[in-house]
Amino acid sequence: MTNATPHAPHRTLAAPDGFDNWLTAFRDQVEGRLTAALDHQLVDTPPRLARALRHTTLDGGKRFRPALVFLGSLIGRPWPETDESRFDSLWPAAIAVELVHVYSLVHDDLPSMDDDDLRRGRPTLHRAFDEATAILAGDALQSLAFTTLAEAQADTATRLDWTRRLAAAIGPAGMVGGQAIDLALAGQVGEDGAPDLARLADLHDRKTGALIRASLVMGARWAGLPERQLRLVDDFGRLLGRAFQIQDDILDVTGSAEDLGKTPGKDAATDKCSYVTVAGLDGARRELDDTVRHAHAVLWELATLGADGQALSACLDFVTRRRY
Amino acid sequence: MTNATPHAPHRTLAAPDGFDNWLTAFRDQVEGRLTAALDHQLVDTPPRLARALRHTTLDGGKRFRPALVFLGSLIGRPWPETDESRFDSLWPAAIAVELVHVYSLVHDDLPSMDDDDLRRGRPTLHRAFDEATAILAGDALQSLAFTTLAEAQADTATRLDWTRRLAAAIGPAGMVGGQAIDLALAGQVGEDGAPDLARLADLHDRKTGALIRASLVMGARWAGLPERQLRLVDDFGRLLGRAFQIQDDILDVTGSAEDLGKTPGKDAATDKCSYVTVAGLDGARRELDDTVRHAHAVLWELATLGADGQALSACLDFVTRRRY
Repeated sequence: MTNATPHAPHRTLAAPDGFDNWLTAFRDQVEGRLTAALDHQLVDTPPRLARALRHTTLDGGKRFRPALVFLGSLIGRPWPETDESRFDSLWPAAIAVELVHVYSLVHDDLPSMDDDDLRRGRPTLHRAFDEATAILAGDALQSLAFTTLAEAQADTATRLDWTRRLAAAIGPAGMVGGQAIDLALAGQVGEDGAPDLARLADLHDRKTGALIRASLVMGARWAGLPERQLRLVDDFGRLLGRAFQIQDDILDVTGSAEDLGKTPGKDAATDKCSYVTVAGLDGARRELDDTVRHAHAVLWELATLGADGQALSACLDFVTRRRY
Repeated sequence: MTNATPHAPHRTLAAPDGFDNWLTAFRDQVEGRLTAALDHQLVDTPPRLARALRHTTLDGGKRFRPALVFLGSLIGRPWPETDESRFDSLWPAAIAVELVHVYSLVHDDLPSMDDDDLRRGRPTLHRAFDEATAILAGDALQSLAFTTLAEAQADTATRLDWTRRLAAAIGPAGMVGGQAIDLALAGQVGEDGAPDLARLADLHDRKTGALIRASLVMGARWAGLPERQLRLVDDFGRLLGRAFQIQDDILDVTGSAEDLGKTPGKDAATDKCSYVTVAGLDGARRELDDTVRHAHAVLWELATLGADGQALSACLDFVTRRRY
C-alpha cells in the first residue's frame, strides 16, 4: 500500500534469477515465522513431541507452498509496492499450508506408506524418533495448521474461507485421497489395466495439486480478488501443481541425491506410479510442455481481466527448471 | 424457543433412566446425521477410502461427545422447551467432535500405538483394511471435522470459535500430547519414578478430557453463555472427563468383553498407566468419588449464576454408572 521497505520482494521477480533470489530470501522469513509459531504453540506440549515437531518442521524445506500464498496475494498488483506489515495477517495462511505439507510428508514417509528413510538429506521422523511419534506429530501438525488460521489477524470471513478451503484440499477427496490412490496403484505399472496418464493426473491433482491450488487461492482470497478471477487462479494452480509433480518425477530419474536430499530412482525401484514410469522420460517431458502451455493460456485469460500474472509466470518457470 | 416437538429431548432427563433413554434416542439421530454428513462429504473420495471411513465412523459408538455438545447448549435452559430445528446450526459441532473422536480411536489402535485388534466388538480399522488406510482415514477424519465446522450454518464468529477451541483441544498440548505421554509412560508402572496420580491426571486431562471439555463448551458457546459461565462449564468438563476416564479404567478391570466391545484387562497386561494400575481399584474409586464431589461443587457455582446444570448432573451420574 505504502512505500516499499528494504525487505520487500525485489522488482526483478519476473526474471528467473529474480524469482530464485526472492524465494531464497523468502525461505529465511518462513523459517523465522515457523520458529516463532512453534515457540508460541508448543509451550504446553510434552517435550519429546515438541522436539519431534521442531525437528521435522524446521528442516530447511523448499517452503514452496508458503511462497504460493504470497504469490497468490500479489496477482494483479505491482509486485514490489508493498509495505511488509501489510502481510502480517497473511502469514498465518502461509504457515498453515506449510504445517500441513510437513504433516503430509511425515505420514507419507511411514513404513506402511512409502517407507522412506531419508527426507531433505536427514533421517525421516520415524527413523529419527519412532513410528508412533511420527504419526502423532503429523496429527498434531494438522491441528496446528487450523489453530494458526483460527488465530490469525485476518477478518473473520477470510479466516473461515481459509479453513474451508484448506480442510477441503487436504481431506478425503483431496490430498489424503490422492495418497490412497497412489498406494493402491503402486505395483500396477506395466501390468494389464495399468493407470493411464488421465488416472495419474487425477491422482496427483489430489495428492500434490490440491494443496498447491489452495495455497495460491488462499493468498488471492486474502487480497480480495473477485470470484471469477479466483476460479482462474484455481485453474492455474491445478496446472502449476501438475507441472510441479511432473518435474518431481523427472528429477527422480535425472536428479542427484545431493540436489534432491532424498534417494533418486525410488519411483522405478518401488513400482510407484509416476509420469516417467507411466509415460517414459520423453512422454513426461511432453506432458510437462503441454501443461506449461495450458497454464500460460490461463495466465493470459487472467491478464485480460486486468490481473497481471507476472509473478505466477516466473513461478511456473522456476518449477519447470528446478533441480531439487 | 417455541413448542416442543415429538422428537425433542424428554422432560425426564434429570432422572438416570431419563438420561439413558435420551442418550439412546440421541444416538440414532447422531447415526443419521453422521451418515448424511459422510454421504455429502465423500462424493469424490476414492471408493476404498470412503468404505474405510464409513466402516469406522458408522459403527454404533457411544456418541458421548456429540451428546455433550447438546448438553452444553442447554445449560441454564428449561430442558425440553426446544424446537428441534433450532439445533440445525449446532449439529455440525456435534458431528465434528465425533469425527475427531473416531480419528483418535483409529490412530490410537494402530500397531505402533496401542496395537488393538478389537474396537466396539469389531476388528479395528487397520485389521479390517490395512495400516496405511487406517492412518489416512484418521487424517481424513480430522480434516472432515474442520470442513464440517467451516460449512455450518452457525454465524461466522461461532464457527471460528469452534475451530479454535477444537483445534487447540486436539493439538500437541491437548489430545495428541496426552497420547504421546501415555505411550511414554507405558511400562513405567510399579517402577522407580513411576507416574503418580497427578501425572496421570495430566495425561488423561489431555488425552480424554480436552475433547470432552471442548464438546461441552462448544455447545455452551453456541447457546451464547457468558464468558464467566463458559469458564465454569470448562471446569466441569475437565472433571467430567476425568470421571469418564477413571470409570473407563475401572471397567477395564471389572467389565466384560461383551459390555465393553473390547478386550478387558488390557491395561494391566500392557503395562498401561491407568487409575487402577497406579492407585489400585479402591484408590481409583476414591479418586472417582472425589472428582464427582468436585464436579458437583462446580455445578453449584454455575447454579448461583443462574445457570441450572440439571442435565450436566444427570450426565455425570450416567458416566459414573456406565458399564460400557
